Amino acid sequence: MYRSHNCGELRINDLNKEVKLSGWVQKVRDKGFIMWVDLRDRYGVTQLIFDQERTPSNVIDLAKTLGREFVINITGSVIERNSKNDLMSTGDIEVLVSELKILNSSITPPFTIEDESDGGEELRMKYRYLDIRREPVKNNLILRHKITQQVRKYLSDNSFIEVETPYLIKSTPEGARDFVVPSRMNPGEFYALPQSPQTFKQLLMVAGMDKYFQIVKCFRDEDLRADRQPEFTQIDCEMAFVSQEDILNTFEDLVKHLFQKVKNIQLDKFPVMTYDDAVQKYGTDKPDLRYDMKFVELNDIAKNREFNVFNNSELVVGFLIEGGNSFTRKDIDKYTDWVKRPQIGAGGLAYLRIQEDGTYKSSVDKFYDQSDLENWANKARAKQGDILFILSGDKDKVRTQLGALRVHVADNLGLKNPEEFKPLWVVDFPLLEWDEETGAFHAMHHPFTSPKPEQIDLIDSDPAAVRADAYDLVLNGNEIGGGSIRIHDKKIQQRMFDCLGFTKEEAEKQFGFLMNAFEYGAPPHGGIAFGLDRLVAIMGGNEIIRDFIAFPKNNSGRDVMIDSPSTVSDEQLKEINLKTTL
Amino acid sequence: MYRSHNCGELRINDLNKEVKLSGWVQKVRDKGFIMWVDLRDRYGVTQLIFDQERTPSNVIDLAKTLGREFVINITGSVIERNSKNDLMSTGDIEVLVSELKILNSSITPPFTIEDESDGGEELRMKYRYLDIRREPVKNNLILRHKITQQVRKYLSDNSFIEVETPYLIKSTPEGARDFVVPSRMNPGEFYALPQSPQTFKQLLMVAGMDKYFQIVKCFRDEDLRADRQPEFTQIDCEMAFVSQEDILNTFEDLVKHLFQKVKNIQLDKFPVMTYDDAVQKYGTDKPDLRYDMKFVELNDIAKNREFNVFNNSELVVGFLIEGGNSFTRKDIDKYTDWVKRPQIGAGGLAYLRIQEDGTYKSSVDKFYDQSDLENWANKARAKQGDILFILSGDKDKVRTQLGALRVHVADNLGLKNPEEFKPLWVVDFPLLEWDEETGAFHAMHHPFTSPKPEQIDLIDSDPAAVRADAYDLVLNGNEIGGGSIRIHDKKIQQRMFDCLGFTKEEAEKQFGFLMNAFEYGAPPHGGIAFGLDRLVAIMGGNEIIRDFIAFPKNNSGRDVMIDSPSTVSDEQLKEINLKTTL
Repeated sequence: MYRSHNCGELRINDLNKEVKLSGWVQKVRDKGFIMWVDLRDRYGVTQLIFDQERTPSNVIDLAKTLGREFVINITGSVIERNSKNDLMSTGDIEVLVSELKILNSSITPPFTIEDESDGGEELRMKYRYLDIRREPVKNNLILRHKITQQVRKYLSDNSFIEVETPYLIKSTPEGARDFVVPSRMNPGEFYALPQSPQTFKQLLMVAGMDKYFQIVKCFRDEDLRADRQPEFTQIDCEMAFVSQEDILNTFEDLVKHLFQKVKNIQLDKFPVMTYDDAVQKYGTDKPDLRYDMKFVELNDIAKNREFNVFNNSELVVGFLIEGGNSFTRKDIDKYTDWVKRPQIGAGGLAYLRIQEDGTYKSSVDKFYDQSDLENWANKARAKQGDILFILSGDKDKVRTQLGALRVHVADNLGLKNPEEFKPLWVVDFPLLEWDEETGAFHAMHHPFTSPKPEQIDLIDSDPAAVRADAYDLVLNGNEIGGGSIRIHDKKIQQRMFDCLGFTKEEAEKQFGFLMNAFEYGAPPHGGIAFGLDRLVAIMGGNEIIRDFIAFPKNNSGRDVMIDSPSTVSDEQLKEINLKTTL
Repeated sequence: MYRSHNCGELRINDLNKEVKLSGWVQKVRDKGFIMWVDLRDRYGVTQLIFDQERTPSNVIDLAKTLGREFVINITGSVIERNSKNDLMSTGDIEVLVSELKILNSSITPPFTIEDESDGGEELRMKYRYLDIRREPVKNNLILRHKITQQVRKYLSDNSFIEVETPYLIKSTPEGARDFVVPSRMNPGEFYALPQSPQTFKQLLMVAGMDKYFQIVKCFRDEDLRADRQPEFTQIDCEMAFVSQEDILNTFEDLVKHLFQKVKNIQLDKFPVMTYDDAVQKYGTDKPDLRYDMKFVELNDIAKNREFNVFNNSELVVGFLIEGGNSFTRKDIDKYTDWVKRPQIGAGGLAYLRIQEDGTYKSSVDKFYDQSDLENWANKARAKQGDILFILSGDKDKVRTQLGALRVHVADNLGLKNPEEFKPLWVVDFPLLEWDEETGAFHAMHHPFTSPKPEQIDLIDSDPAAVRADAYDLVLNGNEIGGGSIRIHDKKIQQRMFDCLGFTKEEAEKQFGFLMNAFEYGAPPHGGIAFGLDRLVAIMGGNEIIRDFIAFPKNNSGRDVMIDSPSTVSDEQLKEINLKTTL
């Protein structure tokens, strides 16, 4: 037996017990005649004591050879500490060691195994098995476990059935790029890894499974932006015989359940906002509601003077920063530079200071008098000491720019409390979006999303106006879930494919099986998928998903620990009838 | 709202309630003035009644247009049936329909949606979404769900953490063939899909995660034998600071928990048998203990006469079939032909009848007298009316042949009760097995399996004799799980790679990351993996795993429903720097 207890559980009422512990040497303090070793395992740290009077000398001699991260197994008795440590759960006791066995030695780790490590990210990724020994990383993985178990419990208790859908499926050029998998048994043919189990979950609805879920890996061969992974995990769900409202209620309750069970936080009823409102008020379809700074449109009171920049703009819009009059000239210059960077692309930043003496000062005050500026301030409900940041330009662009600025200001002012959670449903997404590059409409969600039934005929006359029964769940400015009511009528699905520019043959080749299925009694259905990595990261008070994945890949899609991807032998390639063109 | 109740829940105490139901039309019986429709959903079937006196005529008119598998939504009131049906949970009531809405129509399905369908397997696979509507298939998927939820509950309750390991890993030519995945971002390089998360779970032990599990898809590009799938699901588990005994206890309790919770069956303590015993007594390392027919070795009493077939055989061995004297000459001829087929390869089958009058009759009685035969019968503890089947030949071959015959006889005699469950631990597997083809030793389990510590030095002197701390869990003649204590010492791991013929470079390229990890304090550890598909199938009383997978592939690795694998465009291939050599 390697242990009678773990390193996190001994307490004062275990005094005098003979115990066996196993774990890693966290720290050694050797005072000559007395020696302490902090022994660590997944559950905590226990202090071991070796002393010349009470510990056999051969045990002490062996203890003197211990180094950091050695794996040991000890027998000893629990005694009371002289100086207790309130910060440790085991801080009242220590274990006087009578037997010691070294189970494995360790060379010096490349970084310290401490909460704040001295290792850089690249190094910690290469030695991820050491990184995971660190408390924060370990706790992230345990949090992830707790969340997934609670997801499963909630959904199972609500009659959802977890069904595994296949990983070796079929390539569909629509959407992001697929990873393909050559088939040796079917020469010249390829499977694809799923970007999501979308069509399979819809088939399960046709199959009568009614309430489905799955926590499942999905794959996208995208050029990786920071903090994207080629493989990621979804909580994938679908229901039949439901309206949008049923789905929102069910999954709002799921998220409330998770916060209750995992973080002991009671969330209030989630607000609901239309896509159009979100974009108009926050410049984004995923507004962070932990802070205010709602947009104020100034067209009617700012386009009435000689300032042609505003006069020629489709939209003049700003937001109020409470107490922002304390910004220095330099602060404002920095924000101005920030919005003028090519990633944002604004022409400049106007501001309106509501000074402590009640007067107004603005970057554009040579065009506007104090009463103009007072009108602006009133519209923004500004008070003394506030500042209004204003951008102008093309409506869609300026909203996006101002939305980005709003997030940037919140970052700088520390308004993003990681322990505050503000969920929001965004609904009524556009069905289609215009793609400048291809000069065609794309499905905003995916081609199976149902247009609002009363707007179906707009698809031909005014496609951009059509709204869909599609919704996102936003949490603290991140989209953590998204879904829709699906099309279940073959004719409407066909019309949708037409509208997206699929030829009949393409639609048949790629989605024929789904169209066929719709011939045999497809029920009304809809669903949602949550990005698990993101959800866990936010619940963990952090937005870097890599920190919540056991073995993540870097931004080139590489696993630097196992050194993958890698070359394969010519023989392997020959077997799958391929050769490289490099 | 589509429904107030599901189709399986209305009872006599719901009488007079107004209800809404949705589902599929299972059956229509139209008596003219009165009409019944069986409405089906995932939860059951409810009988609807339309009658000219009580149902609006427009509703009746619409009902007359219903066909099989139409999806409908009705409102009606619960009334008592005239003729009750005890076989249906809702058999006491029916619903008198006042409103009817057709949600979707259906063309005639290609096979009947009944427990016993008229559809052949190929057809049912092509229309799997209709096949799943059938009660037995649906129930298999629900059983699978229940089992996985209970696996997770048991393991979570026992402090195991579910950790997701990556799907895009690295190709290792050792073992079965990998599926590879070309990397577009790393031209000329490939990921591989995991055959199991073996190395990752070992790294998690090095990382201190201590008790890990995962229900995870694994992939093998093998030539598919009947009832193998290129993608399959494992319950993958690993523990640190444990002995083999700890692992056996933990997972025996898991399996007991599953049978208790899912099937309400209390399993006794599992017997334990060594690999050598299993092979000697049953001719296989996965004996089915639902029936006896243990082997009886006859060398000492059968190699003492003039019969050179036996005299020249390394082993003469048989098993007793109780009541088998009732076999006709023709029965025995059939068994003889069966063992002589090339798949079995025996030279012939000898028998010994213990006749009702107490005399002996044997196919070889010209070489043996009655007292010889009596000795055989006594050794086999035969009684009147039994028969002894006997094979002879090379020890290993004849045991395998006789083992196959034992299973075949049990099949014919109906001894495999699908509702009886006989688990067995098989332990002490050989570490290595000799591969005739390559003329080298292969790891019997995998290269990370620990030899028994006291036998380590035999690795050089007598490799075939070394036993491993490796174990299988066998259930009703199927291996449902297997695992081992792993090597955690870098030097022993290196020795193992040497013994398996890896060059230092190969070992480094493929498993360098694991060897490195062993430098930093690897704890003693071991684990087990269960084949979920097989476990669910056996618990479902069936041994065909395809029936327990939502969307299985056929024996050519094809998904005939979505028609995958399929060709991809030249453009797609070009992007990943590949071309086919076909």
